[in-house]
Amino acid sequence: MSDRLPSWRPGTTRDALLDFLDAATGVPAEERVACIDNDGTLWCEKPQYIQFYFFLDAMRRAVAADPGLGDKPEFAALIGHDRGAMADIGLLRIVMALAGLFAGRSPEEFDSQAKDFMASAQHPDLGRPMSGLRYQPMLELVDELRALDFTISITTAGGTEFVRAISRRLYGVDPALVLGTDIAYDLRDGPGGPSLVRTAALAGVPNEGPPKVSRIQNHLGRRPIFAAGNTSGDQHMMEWTSTGPGLRFALLVDHDDDEREFAYEGGAATFEAEAPILEVANQRGWTVASMRDDWDVIFADPA
Amino acid sequence: MSDRLPSWRPGTTRDALLDFLDAATGVPAEERVACIDNDGTLWCEKPQYIQFYFFLDAMRRAVAADPGLGDKPEFAALIGHDRGAMADIGLLRIVMALAGLFAGRSPEEFDSQAKDFMASAQHPDLGRPMSGLRYQPMLELVDELRALDFTISITTAGGTEFVRAISRRLYGVDPALVLGTDIAYDLRDGPGGPSLVRTAALAGVPNEGPPKVSRIQNHLGRRPIFAAGNTSGDQHMMEWTSTGPGLRFALLVDHDDDEREFAYEGGAATFEAEAPILEVANQRGWTVASMRDDWDVIFADPA
Repeated sequence: MSDRLPSWRPGTTRDALLDFLDAATGVPAEERVACIDNDGTLWCEKPQYIQFYFFLDAMRRAVAADPGLGDKPEFAALIGHDRGAMADIGLLRIVMALAGLFAGRSPEEFDSQAKDFMASAQHPDLGRPMSGLRYQPMLELVDELRALDFTISITTAGGTEFVRAISRRLYGVDPALVLGTDIAYDLRDGPGGPSLVRTAALAGVPNEGPPKVSRIQNHLGRRPIFAAGNTSGDQHMMEWTSTGPGLRFALLVDHDDDEREFAYEGGAATFEAEAPILEVANQRGWTVASMRDDWDVIFADPA
Repeated sequence: MSDRLPSWRPGTTRDALLDFLDAATGVPAEERVACIDNDGTLWCEKPQYIQFYFFLDAMRRAVAADPGLGDKPEFAALIGHDRGAMADIGLLRIVMALAGLFAGRSPEEFDSQAKDFMASAQHPDLGRPMSGLRYQPMLELVDELRALDFTISITTAGGTEFVRAISRRLYGVDPALVLGTDIAYDLRDGPGGPSLVRTAALAGVPNEGPPKVSRIQNHLGRRPIFAAGNTSGDQHMMEWTSTGPGLRFALLVDHDDDEREFAYEGGAATFEAEAPILEVANQRGWTVASMRDDWDVIFADPA
């Protein structure tokens, strides 16, 4: 038995991955491109996205410094845990209000604050540090892809710069290969030269659903041969990846382990789905990783 | 004397580059990022951009196959060498009409056609193959940056996918690190699965002037410490690069050699400049490479 992927239990899922890895040695190196979703695929996304906790932390600091900020409807709903108000306002508007807390800040300041948060914050439910929410089996898979010289891209609906702040340390992924939802920057003149500051607006659209596909082509210039995801927001990326010519692989991470993590259908994404992603995966013949059955260990040690 | 940069003549320009390369070994590897313009910086851009010749070639083929296309005002002006009409129509509209010839084509088809052109076409004036228009001194500089594990990005106003088609073969640059003007893609459903096709529109704005700066941040996630360019379209990138903290370098390629190449002020870009780029470079204290005086050889052998 192979000593690769040690946290994957023996079975058809692990066999399918090992078969793909073996076959990938026959693919020209420049075509070895893997696009892997982050939230719910590489690390935990429940009960909230990790970036959301980072934003909440920033909001609490901002409101402590300037209590009037707490009257802003998006923040008042969050502070009051008012689910009705939150639903009325909508996730995107709430997230944009939170992202707006960093308007006027430099990318370096944002990066530094994200790194500080990830180095110190604890998950509110799991009793683990935020840097201990990576999935060990997925880290082993990323290591195997890296050993084959894959270009490994984290392709996420999360904020590009937030994920970049930890991509190298937590996953060994080059920040230039993190493709997420981009903030728009403003180029400001100053006495020492021009500098970039974040705005409260997006550059383009959220990186979810069909836009993920165009974005991969625009950013990487190649169609991946391997994709992994866990929600309908990854569906188009996985369909596009898995239907090209030659060797292809699509992996769906199924959150079915309510003892060791959370059990939920892959409907956490904001993208509107036509069918549950597990149903789509079975129809398309994708490989489904059951967290309950296929993973011997869920979480990696904190980084 | 160092045997590095052999095509750079001894003098202050070469010394400044060697000093920078030596000092860069003291910069953390992840901060070693170089952004280098393509047209007029890495290869010849006169009398027309190489991509423009590629587009003209595509137009001639398209008109040969469908003569009615020649009546399109943008194409009629080109075919008739009607400079007045071309000026009235404007470069951007002409380029977009030419780019529109590829609407509906897959990225792989475009890539293949660009590679074919670059493998066979000749420059109309210089009597050299298109793949023989790279500047030998700049290739040597790219090699030195690569030896220091720099992340080397080609940051161009040209079409991203056109430059990507040759970035690895001509410059050893990863296609994912080519940042240019992006075409918008359309995701189409088909019986075999979804596929991407090019549209006739841009995704975002031309990658020239201030947008180059935001784009570098969005794509690479880091401020470069080295930038090279030759026109006002590179000015903001070079200002932003050269005014950050720590070790910095900005290189302006000055086209002053009308015997071996073309002599022209760096005003070929579409971006509106406040002052000639050579004047800006001197004011800012950037290093200026005189093609006439600093370069012992201009062109590299065809690839």
